[in-house]
Amino acid sequence: MPLSKKLNIEIIIRILGILLIIEGIFMLTALPFSIYYGDSTAFSWKFFDGTHDFWALLISALISGGTGAIMYFAAGKDVKKAIGKREGYIIVSFAWVIISLFGALPFVLCGAIPGYTDAFFETISGFTTTGATILTDIEAMPKGLLFWRSTTHWIGGMGIIVLSLAILPFLGIGGMQLFIAEVPGPTPDKLHPRITQTAKRLWGIYVLLTVVETGLLMLGGMNLFDGLCHAFGTMATGGFSTKNASIAGYSPYIQYVIMIFMILAGTNFSLHYLALHGKLRDVFKNEEYRYYLGAIGFTTIIITLSLFFTNINNFDFEHAFRDSIFTVVSIITTTGFITADYLVWPGVLWFIIFLLMFVGGSAGSTGGGIKVMRQLLLFKNSLLELKRQMHPQAVIPVRMNGKPISQDIIFNVLAFFLIYMISFALGTFVMSMLGLDFESAIGSTAATIGNIGPGIGSVGPVGNYADIPLLGKWFLSFLMLLGRLELFTVLILFSPAFWKR
Amino acid sequence: MPLSKKLNIEIIIRILGILLIIEGIFMLTALPFSIYYGDSTAFSWKFFDGTHDFWALLISALISGGTGAIMYFAAGKDVKKAIGKREGYIIVSFAWVIISLFGALPFVLCGAIPGYTDAFFETISGFTTTGATILTDIEAMPKGLLFWRSTTHWIGGMGIIVLSLAILPFLGIGGMQLFIAEVPGPTPDKLHPRITQTAKRLWGIYVLLTVVETGLLMLGGMNLFDGLCHAFGTMATGGFSTKNASIAGYSPYIQYVIMIFMILAGTNFSLHYLALHGKLRDVFKNEEYRYYLGAIGFTTIIITLSLFFTNINNFDFEHAFRDSIFTVVSIITTTGFITADYLVWPGVLWFIIFLLMFVGGSAGSTGGGIKVMRQLLLFKNSLLELKRQMHPQAVIPVRMNGKPISQDIIFNVLAFFLIYMISFALGTFVMSMLGLDFESAIGSTAATIGNIGPGIGSVGPVGNYADIPLLGKWFLSFLMLLGRLELFTVLILFSPAFWKR
Repeated sequence: MPLSKKLNIEIIIRILGILLIIEGIFMLTALPFSIYYGDSTAFSWKFFDGTHDFWALLISALISGGTGAIMYFAAGKDVKKAIGKREGYIIVSFAWVIISLFGALPFVLCGAIPGYTDAFFETISGFTTTGATILTDIEAMPKGLLFWRSTTHWIGGMGIIVLSLAILPFLGIGGMQLFIAEVPGPTPDKLHPRITQTAKRLWGIYVLLTVVETGLLMLGGMNLFDGLCHAFGTMATGGFSTKNASIAGYSPYIQYVIMIFMILAGTNFSLHYLALHGKLRDVFKNEEYRYYLGAIGFTTIIITLSLFFTNINNFDFEHAFRDSIFTVVSIITTTGFITADYLVWPGVLWFIIFLLMFVGGSAGSTGGGIKVMRQLLLFKNSLLELKRQMHPQAVIPVRMNGKPISQDIIFNVLAFFLIYMISFALGTFVMSMLGLDFESAIGSTAATIGNIGPGIGSVGPVGNYADIPLLGKWFLSFLMLLGRLELFTVLILFSPAFWKR
Repeated sequence: MPLSKKLNIEIIIRILGILLIIEGIFMLTALPFSIYYGDSTAFSWKFFDGTHDFWALLISALISGGTGAIMYFAAGKDVKKAIGKREGYIIVSFAWVIISLFGALPFVLCGAIPGYTDAFFETISGFTTTGATILTDIEAMPKGLLFWRSTTHWIGGMGIIVLSLAILPFLGIGGMQLFIAEVPGPTPDKLHPRITQTAKRLWGIYVLLTVVETGLLMLGGMNLFDGLCHAFGTMATGGFSTKNASIAGYSPYIQYVIMIFMILAGTNFSLHYLALHGKLRDVFKNEEYRYYLGAIGFTTIIITLSLFFTNINNFDFEHAFRDSIFTVVSIITTTGFITADYLVWPGVLWFIIFLLMFVGGSAGSTGGGIKVMRQLLLFKNSLLELKRQMHPQAVIPVRMNGKPISQDIIFNVLAFFLIYMISFALGTFVMSMLGLDFESAIGSTAATIGNIGPGIGSVGPVGNYADIPLLGKWFLSFLMLLGRLELFTVLILFSPAFWKR
């Protein structure tokens, strides 16, 4: 049993150090935008004034990278490369907290987000691809910081651990434990038996789709900066925009491009791999994919027709359709881009939107939430339970894509769902305790644990998280992390059995 | 396999006939109150005027009993007594619908509830022990009808099928299937291996507690009529009162008596049996019972302190404590008696109350909802799932009272919880579609499927269900039945596999 062994603290420290170095390098990529968009005082040695971001980014990069280097060498020369289950869970959970702690520095040093709590909230909201913002005037932010903000999405979307697996071959051996802890979803198909290969392919597809989307957005009139930021936000299913109005101010072309890439980002990436190899029939035979597209199609039709016939905004059919499908896709994929304020829609419609917050993307996608695969398994299992009541002796397994699914997986999915709902209820309770009204309490909880961003009530599509009390921001940050790492990886650290021996 | 056999329609018709006869007899018990409280015109041959209930009750009793007798004899002479699984589910589901259809007659014939939809809603709300009312002035109702209204609670509390098992020995053979369909909860302990004995003991304890409570209420100044009606409402965890202000107008003594008997009604009745035989140690060692009392104690402390220190009503400590514990017990046990309008409490507190709506009574009690036993199993299983993640090879069963629980039961409980939450979500969606605001939609759904009665929003403690649209009343009636028969017994009838061959 690897559990009874002593914890390999050295490898934990070394890998966390590496991740901080990677983070520092990513911060540097924001510098060109800081210079390009900065005025003549861009390089002046000023801090905390909210407008000068060059030195703030550079110093933050040095602090992250420097700390990372110190940790890397402090771990000692003879680090054993063995990464057990426990090390895996600890590395992944701690990694996400640490990169958020350091990732908040540029905002504070620049002064664009003066309070550290707010800066941390914005950063972890970025990394977890939630997209919940405390900013009230996004366009007033220096461009370098906005680029870093969108970069946190992009890093978090496919996962910083998966990235390090892709680029650091030495992690190959223990990499599986790390992969399991960061990508715990019920993903039946592995792209490739060797985890390094899988990580490379996932990031490869991710980069490819991001580049294509950026290109298409620039064809529609966006500049490179806006194109990259929105592509990052789309492919990560994040939702940070560079505009106060999110996507509402852009042309229908841009809106359709983003909508289509949200759908792609919420799809299981192994299907993209199949599609790239021409196996389109396999893609469309996939049950999860069909359910995912079906759910989008069905709710879009209902909302489009309702919006068109109630005629609230005097929209033509195309506009009603566009707002409907964009919102449905944005919420189901847990992205959170906005083209319309769904809270002014008739009550039933925003209740549909609220329910969609519990759907989530596909397994193996960058989307969060409960995820389509889990719902499909749960739904099938519940229907079969009626059959089991009639035939108590028979063994009736759940099937997915024709294959029987083991009871262990069903059990795990059921426990996931339950813990998700308990967390949602407790979260709502805590947010109510902190003074939020009922709708804002359930809205903020559902939108953060589901990594969506905009919720209902005061944190709805035209609202933001600025007025959430301090404690609430830390608590919602925890919920975002809990949701992004799919509950178990984080919660397991709170179980006494985990730390025994 | 008994399933492939032809459906035994004769036994279904015969038993439904018997139940209608029983219902007719119960209606007659309201006549003395109709006579005693009626004025000089009590016996006059008047209908539909809303005040004369003697003939309305008598004729309804004759219609029910007569129809029952016709069905009994129409079933033919040579009815096979075999009751399979399918017959069991059909008899129980249909029984509850039919007794509600006939039970609504007195209200309509008298005219006190002119519309049949409203009368049916009130009756099924009574039988399912929900206690949701469409009456806006309860005290204006003729006393005979009010007594019948409370009697529906009492019949439904322990179950009309269980009653018939107790008094009709000929059902003994196939009785188990009927018992399973009406009392499907996860009840690990059977009181007695022979189902007739079990039914007798359950109803025996039920009658005993009802008599004792009535006596104690009369000691506190209630007359026999009010005493019986409130004892019926308490022991059935129903919640219909004879007063517009529910229990709020009564003395603290009466409130404490009702509160204590609500706790008893929400307790597993096999624990009462143990207690009556002096085995108090076994009672307090029972895990479900401890969790149940713990949940009541914990939430009561929180709410008492909050109410006392926020000082909303200028209450002394005893009054704050009394309102708190009464409300907590009333909601947890799914009774729905009211001494305070919890919607005017601070937001957090009524959110706690809302969460309590999902707790429910103990297994083997008259309480509804998800039930404490299920939650305890789910909660334990979720915690163990974290352990299972660490030790994927180990088999780690859930234990209850020291004994391992089979995976099948856990599976069933998980499916129950899931279907409950789906029904809640769909229900809220339907009620929103029918025009209710968000809080009233979730409130009415949670309060009916949980068999509680008062919810939140417009159907809160000082509201009622009068203004729910017609379709909504039928839909909520369905939810009440779904909740009372614990989902599977009703839903199984909608499964195509059930009707095959």
